[in-house]
Amino acid sequence: MNERLRQLTTHLTNQSLHAAIITNPKHVYYLSGFRSDPHERLLALIVTADGGSKLLVPQLDRAGAEASASVDVIESHRDTDDAYAILAGMLGKDSGGQLAIEKERVTVSQYERMRSVLPQSSLLGIDDALLAMRAVKTADEVARIKRAVQLIEQVLRDTLPLVKPGVTELELAADIDFRMRKVGAEGPSFDTTVLAGANSALPHGTPGNRKIAEGELLLFDMGVYADGYVSDITRTFAVGDVSDELKRIYASVLKANELGIQALKPGVPMMEADLAARRHIEASGYGDRFTHRLGHGIGLDIHEYPSLHGANAELLREGMVVTVEPGIYVPGLGGVRIEDDVLLTSGGSETLTTFPKLLTIIGV
Amino acid sequence: MNERLRQLTTHLTNQSLHAAIITNPKHVYYLSGFRSDPHERLLALIVTADGGSKLLVPQLDRAGAEASASVDVIESHRDTDDAYAILAGMLGKDSGGQLAIEKERVTVSQYERMRSVLPQSSLLGIDDALLAMRAVKTADEVARIKRAVQLIEQVLRDTLPLVKPGVTELELAADIDFRMRKVGAEGPSFDTTVLAGANSALPHGTPGNRKIAEGELLLFDMGVYADGYVSDITRTFAVGDVSDELKRIYASVLKANELGIQALKPGVPMMEADLAARRHIEASGYGDRFTHRLGHGIGLDIHEYPSLHGANAELLREGMVVTVEPGIYVPGLGGVRIEDDVLLTSGGSETLTTFPKLLTIIGV
Repeated sequence: MNERLRQLTTHLTNQSLHAAIITNPKHVYYLSGFRSDPHERLLALIVTADGGSKLLVPQLDRAGAEASASVDVIESHRDTDDAYAILAGMLGKDSGGQLAIEKERVTVSQYERMRSVLPQSSLLGIDDALLAMRAVKTADEVARIKRAVQLIEQVLRDTLPLVKPGVTELELAADIDFRMRKVGAEGPSFDTTVLAGANSALPHGTPGNRKIAEGELLLFDMGVYADGYVSDITRTFAVGDVSDELKRIYASVLKANELGIQALKPGVPMMEADLAARRHIEASGYGDRFTHRLGHGIGLDIHEYPSLHGANAELLREGMVVTVEPGIYVPGLGGVRIEDDVLLTSGGSETLTTFPKLLTIIGV
Repeated sequence: MNERLRQLTTHLTNQSLHAAIITNPKHVYYLSGFRSDPHERLLALIVTADGGSKLLVPQLDRAGAEASASVDVIESHRDTDDAYAILAGMLGKDSGGQLAIEKERVTVSQYERMRSVLPQSSLLGIDDALLAMRAVKTADEVARIKRAVQLIEQVLRDTLPLVKPGVTELELAADIDFRMRKVGAEGPSFDTTVLAGANSALPHGTPGNRKIAEGELLLFDMGVYADGYVSDITRTFAVGDVSDELKRIYASVLKANELGIQALKPGVPMMEADLAARRHIEASGYGDRFTHRLGHGIGLDIHEYPSLHGANAELLREGMVVTVEPGIYVPGLGGVRIEDDVLLTSGGSETLTTFPKLLTIIGV
């Protein structure tokens, strides 16, 4: 039994649950090593409190599951089968017990189908336990995130020489997505963001036909999937020389980024990191222009537990990987965001992103 | 009130439902014209049996909703609000009635939140009614699909000159995704598929590092989103001259594609189109190599109702847009699939895809 299955089994035992039925493909991958997108078909991993693991896959995934799933038993179903009845059969004596499901994932239709084949069971939620497990990464997961970071940083390095006044945000974004695949990433981990000039002041802006222009900022926010794990980096550049105000804003965000990272230590409340960065930006006179939280966990999802916001008293834990991404956004003028991916270590933290952060002039 | 809201209202009345709570963003777009991805936040359109429509959006979507939603009332919620309580308030006197929800979309967690604020209500499913409505396209929807078809055909035309022996499947796929954005599409409507040689015999293959080689087949299956609607086209080419067997396979699939399209007429059982294509492939001696259904509906989703399979006795209706995509797959040798998007018209059908289908030699 792998370490993750062992952790889940311990949780089941502690909560007097007989078994968990896991259907989120990312969680099936996380727990069993088998990765697949079953679309509308049923994919389910049963983990029992006594440590057993059984995987039910669509017939066309059977060979793939046999090659990669570390589970005790693999069963498969054809499109003409009643997959839920097979699931109930696999649960055996546990089919009438206290069972855990992913309530944030399972639809009402799927729930009703489970209910109909498991009429004696209680179906409870297991979402929070899985999120808490996922928040603390293993060495293997950290290695995958590091690879995703390396790939996106290579893309960023290769893209900068293409920046010239007159090129549009959308052209750069398309180029970046193209390069992601070329370097071997599985694809973008979210919509690639390239924002020029005043557009960089939109924290959720999307690339359009605005042209890169000298004297303006250019913001890149992007990441890739590699082996199912994400990277997420933001860097902001000056296209030629920019105004003193933009330079001051940049310096404030950079310092806030560094202070946020310095505050990351196991055992420290999450809010401390947010507040360390926020207080610096407030002291710079831009407190009302830092309009979002400091960061969020990354891993199998681009946004996952935990949330680094200014009211979160939960404690940081060794093995968490979080973003630190303070920003200042001045409507009409421009915005700066500098985002790193940071691993919590026993002694403090290790910044996984390595791309230089000093204000860099490009495009001229 | 728009035609789609009117249809939904009629359904509610006929089913003695007091209101529908629509939360699938594609259905909110379909019914109200407001398009947004609310991520984990609540987006809900309430449609009442008396014809009323109320939209609840996250605060940051309020301006966008006011600009594009054709509804009677728009309300918004902040992250600190209880969005479900606001939803219940908006339902007013209907909050204790028979309500319809999308059971194929709503998660157990969301359902439990709805239940807690609507304790007196009955929550029934409305998925099938929405799918049936969506299956019959309006002129406006057909225009969007046609634009998505034009864009992907432009991409295919521009890509063919790049095909040369030695180029990999993955390089071509990355190039195609890049061109989709450049021509103005919103992005791929599914993972772009480029399969060379023996790989083309995998109906669900994904592009890898296999190189294009002379004397082999090259299969493209791809589509884009334009204004929220998809296109979906498959063409198979010969890289230089190919064997007589591959030419025979190609001819059989092309004829099956034409026979499938000819069978499409309003009022005809869907199975007839599948069987018309299948019988021809069987007569060619490849019956066991056509391993999937003839086609599927397209629209807001790349796979939507209806399903053109050989046991479907449902009747085709004017306004449906379906794919016709017979294929023959010979393991180790190669596969051919030819896929068109076809609109059911009063007199028969109109093929929306226009890319030539005669066996074309490229890459040399």
